[in-house]
Amino acid sequence: MQMPPARVGMTLEDIETPALIIDLDAMERNLRFMAQAVKGTLVKLRPHAKMHKSPDLARLQMAQGAVGVCCQKVSEAEAMVRGGVPDILVSNQVVGDAKLIRLAALSKQAKVAICADDPIQVERYSAAASSFGATLPVLVEVDVGAHRCGVAPGQPVAELAQCIERAPGLRFAGLQAYQGSAQHKRQPAERREAIQSAIAQIRESLQALEKSGLACAWITGAGTGTYRHEIASGVYTELQVGSYLFMDADYARNLGEDGRPVHEFEHSLFVLATVISRPVPDRAVVDAGLKAYTAESGLPLVHDLPGAECVRVSDEHGVLKLGPDVPLRLGDRVMLIPGHCDPTVNLHDWYVGVRKGRVESIWPIAARGAVS
Amino acid sequence: MQMPPARVGMTLEDIETPALIIDLDAMERNLRFMAQAVKGTLVKLRPHAKMHKSPDLARLQMAQGAVGVCCQKVSEAEAMVRGGVPDILVSNQVVGDAKLIRLAALSKQAKVAICADDPIQVERYSAAASSFGATLPVLVEVDVGAHRCGVAPGQPVAELAQCIERAPGLRFAGLQAYQGSAQHKRQPAERREAIQSAIAQIRESLQALEKSGLACAWITGAGTGTYRHEIASGVYTELQVGSYLFMDADYARNLGEDGRPVHEFEHSLFVLATVISRPVPDRAVVDAGLKAYTAESGLPLVHDLPGAECVRVSDEHGVLKLGPDVPLRLGDRVMLIPGHCDPTVNLHDWYVGVRKGRVESIWPIAARGAVS
Repeated sequence: MQMPPARVGMTLEDIETPALIIDLDAMERNLRFMAQAVKGTLVKLRPHAKMHKSPDLARLQMAQGAVGVCCQKVSEAEAMVRGGVPDILVSNQVVGDAKLIRLAALSKQAKVAICADDPIQVERYSAAASSFGATLPVLVEVDVGAHRCGVAPGQPVAELAQCIERAPGLRFAGLQAYQGSAQHKRQPAERREAIQSAIAQIRESLQALEKSGLACAWITGAGTGTYRHEIASGVYTELQVGSYLFMDADYARNLGEDGRPVHEFEHSLFVLATVISRPVPDRAVVDAGLKAYTAESGLPLVHDLPGAECVRVSDEHGVLKLGPDVPLRLGDRVMLIPGHCDPTVNLHDWYVGVRKGRVESIWPIAARGAVS
Repeated sequence: MQMPPARVGMTLEDIETPALIIDLDAMERNLRFMAQAVKGTLVKLRPHAKMHKSPDLARLQMAQGAVGVCCQKVSEAEAMVRGGVPDILVSNQVVGDAKLIRLAALSKQAKVAICADDPIQVERYSAAASSFGATLPVLVEVDVGAHRCGVAPGQPVAELAQCIERAPGLRFAGLQAYQGSAQHKRQPAERREAIQSAIAQIRESLQALEKSGLACAWITGAGTGTYRHEIASGVYTELQVGSYLFMDADYARNLGEDGRPVHEFEHSLFVLATVISRPVPDRAVVDAGLKAYTAESGLPLVHDLPGAECVRVSDEHGVLKLGPDVPLRLGDRVMLIPGHCDPTVNLHDWYVGVRKGRVESIWPIAARGAVS
């Protein structure tokens, strides 16, 4: 772990770069906006901690009504529990007995649920839970259109749920029904249709469960691109949104019904960088490259500096193309909006929370690198 | 920093996944191959530590004749010095007085040189070095075709070199002349021409320096894609190759004179992953995604498993498409060859060194996240 790039009380100008900056005012508006969206509905908020990797931020989400968090990995769940999060859904399959022992042990300290899409997983979950005298709630992951993990909807869901119910140390708890491939479809009609299709597949699965005499009170899914459809669905009971908190450049390319980008959430996450070279008039090179943000969802956007565009990145450099009137000098700072917030956060050891130009919080990214 | 995914003595099957694996035999062959390539020439090896981020690996390179390492960042140089590396070239501009104070302080513990492409940097380097009573060797970065940082060849090089020579606490030491954009050109003729052009621009710069009465005994550049041209150039005195040690999937796409991929170096770096879902016969999902390898230079290759191809990745999942006869079961392990080794290494906290299926070394990736 590297040393923090700032100290509380510093101004933006004194932060060592590159640094991962949170605009606290903007993030808090995003927090409240999503809390408001579920208020008065039957749908609960369980934000995904794979995005922010920070129990400090998870606790802020819970203070605004979140029931707990989702995690993708056991090590991520461990970091959340150590940071005071009492209720976790591992929204993923876990394979490997050493990991399952860790998960069962963790369930003695906090509420921990897990997903399955195969009877072989169920057998191993049961063995691990039983060895700790624990009872693990298990959700069946349904493939509602993303075609990654998950059993087919309908009868296969009921069969796996029965398998879970029969297994010592386990209890069938609900459905994991995340339609990941819908989140970044640019047109609102495409997103709506994808979630309508997911809802139909969940209904089909619920009918099969009912025939098998199994109740299902927990249905979780949704992302920042589609959450309004899941709230309105009548079937989803929880949202596992993540990116709403920070909003990255890629999500900001989603269009709304008016044909313009959806503007519910503000960019609140930035990579602060310094201009280290001005070799020719139309080029500035900054000290932040592929080790400060990731590029698989597009290059970062330059915040609040019209005429400057990031056009090329390498491991430690970002190349900005400058229009004729951009007064960017050696040593100047720029704020970059990352293309994809989840893997960008995972590069950094620290969040630097800034309000009105002054550092207010330094939060460790406790689950950074928690891949196991 | 996460806990290590293995212990010394374990077999490959017991390592927690995802994990970053070094095939020690293959890596040592790569080490010796490059050491052999410079043997008997006037060119020295100064491998780039931005790739491996590990003083343990830097010491292995020095044991095979390397004179020290290159770094891109001050924090990387600090990690190398703390790990016993006595001679470092920061092959980059450093902007920011706090960083320069750290660099000048570091120069009291080890040989540290730095690059410049602007008189403003030179002024700040001089102030920092003088405040410590240090003398910093400074190389002029020349743009020999990559069009990132660097001054234009010829007279501008001589002017900046004179500026360095005049500055208290600094000494003009040589030329940084890395042609980064040549490294991944697929055709051997393209790579050769790019380096021939770089050599011509260096000669032009040397003439300008000579006219100014400045000697230049240190000319550094080269990468794994072009190093043979720099060795043969008659002007380069050092190589700053990095990827030769691990060989990633992207470098392995470079073609040789015979039209086939260059096969001087072996893949020695792998991401070990576990199959966590087998939802349909032709799909396996592994537990390693964008937080275990990066994808900006292409998806990872599946090692030693014909008929399996990585076709899609998300934050924590890799989706493999399987041919009809690929016997991959839930819980099986696969070895993935990353597309781009530098940013992939930077995701992990630990190397797991394996020889003949058994863990022999656990090395911290000490400079992981060292971006400042």
